[in-house]
Amino acid sequence: MALEIPEVVIDRLPVYGRALALLQRQGREVVNSQELGERLGVTPAQIRKDLSYFGRFGKQGRGYNVARLLEELNQILGLTREWAMVLVGVGQLGRAIIGYDGFAPQGFRIIAAFDDDPNTVGTLVNGQTIRSVSTLRETLEQNKADIGIVAVPGASAQRVIDNLVDCGVKAILNYAPIAAQAPSHVRIKDIDPVLALQSMTFYIKGED
Amino acid sequence: MALEIPEVVIDRLPVYGRALALLQRQGREVVNSQELGERLGVTPAQIRKDLSYFGRFGKQGRGYNVARLLEELNQILGLTREWAMVLVGVGQLGRAIIGYDGFAPQGFRIIAAFDDDPNTVGTLVNGQTIRSVSTLRETLEQNKADIGIVAVPGASAQRVIDNLVDCGVKAILNYAPIAAQAPSHVRIKDIDPVLALQSMTFYIKGED
Repeated sequence: MALEIPEVVIDRLPVYGRALALLQRQGREVVNSQELGERLGVTPAQIRKDLSYFGRFGKQGRGYNVARLLEELNQILGLTREWAMVLVGVGQLGRAIIGYDGFAPQGFRIIAAFDDDPNTVGTLVNGQTIRSVSTLRETLEQNKADIGIVAVPGASAQRVIDNLVDCGVKAILNYAPIAAQAPSHVRIKDIDPVLALQSMTFYIKGED
Repeated sequence: MALEIPEVVIDRLPVYGRALALLQRQGREVVNSQELGERLGVTPAQIRKDLSYFGRFGKQGRGYNVARLLEELNQILGLTREWAMVLVGVGQLGRAIIGYDGFAPQGFRIIAAFDDDPNTVGTLVNGQTIRSVSTLRETLEQNKADIGIVAVPGASAQRVIDNLVDCGVKAILNYAPIAAQAPSHVRIKDIDPVLALQSMTFYIKGED
């Protein structure tokens, strides 16, 4: 089934999940697609269509049970377990990533961080002792991690990604400003502020 | 015309632009949609369809002139000028953003950075003297900036965004882990590593 679902649909599910989690914390038991859409800037029809890929949720005219839909989305997305991650690149950005407190509450845990600068290797950053990149394979053989985070400069990013893939990592979160490549069995997402900026300027360019 | 073009198409144009810029640096004069697609993991048909929203590029069977298509895309996206940005939030993440060297080469410049911590205000970070958030309006009245970058904790992010919008900012790059809201005349993009992770786990969850 997975192959038939457009990637843009999968990309929206975590956004729905986040809104539902917020509703749950606010004590809400039911929400309809109208309200959910208004909160997220998405049409209700879009939400219903996206969810229809995964079966029937909610009853006509009665909306969705918040807790149940959230649980279903977490099941679908594989978020009912913890995910171990390794980070490569402990410059200013890597330090911000290690210090980022949004990962752990969502079940994503950085189990090891690597750098190739001898002045950085061995130092302690937010409780992580930074390891040499040369020990990546050894570390991943001893500690399973499915996700690699890449926060190295663009010039070395593809080499680091190839290395991670070679060591068995199945998904890459890439912060380097390159059009990174990975084999088709590996998922890759770029975190790229410039691409985000460049798609917003389209809309605001005519306003001056 | 702008309103008819799906946002996902606009989102892909900077990705095409980046690949073309790389080809140009490599001395390439022509590229066809087949090769461009292979480099980006997009079908050639998708590229042709996306570009067709903006007129005719390239000749049947001869591919695209790299320099000309890049120039056209930059015109379309509003990237032939410089964009001034203000940053709010100078914690670990904000420091990484100020130090990020990917903005300037693409014409995005942080002209001022703000924080509300008295210990941070007045300090120098990568050449920027950090200002008090209370001076945001005054600064933006004296120096025009169309884009605001938000790197504050989730709990204060919406307030900061409202403040930026109120001061005339037209686009927001939001790093805070919230479903941020902005009026419809303001563009907003979230940089959210957790959402990116949560959409990848869907694909790798069954592989253990």
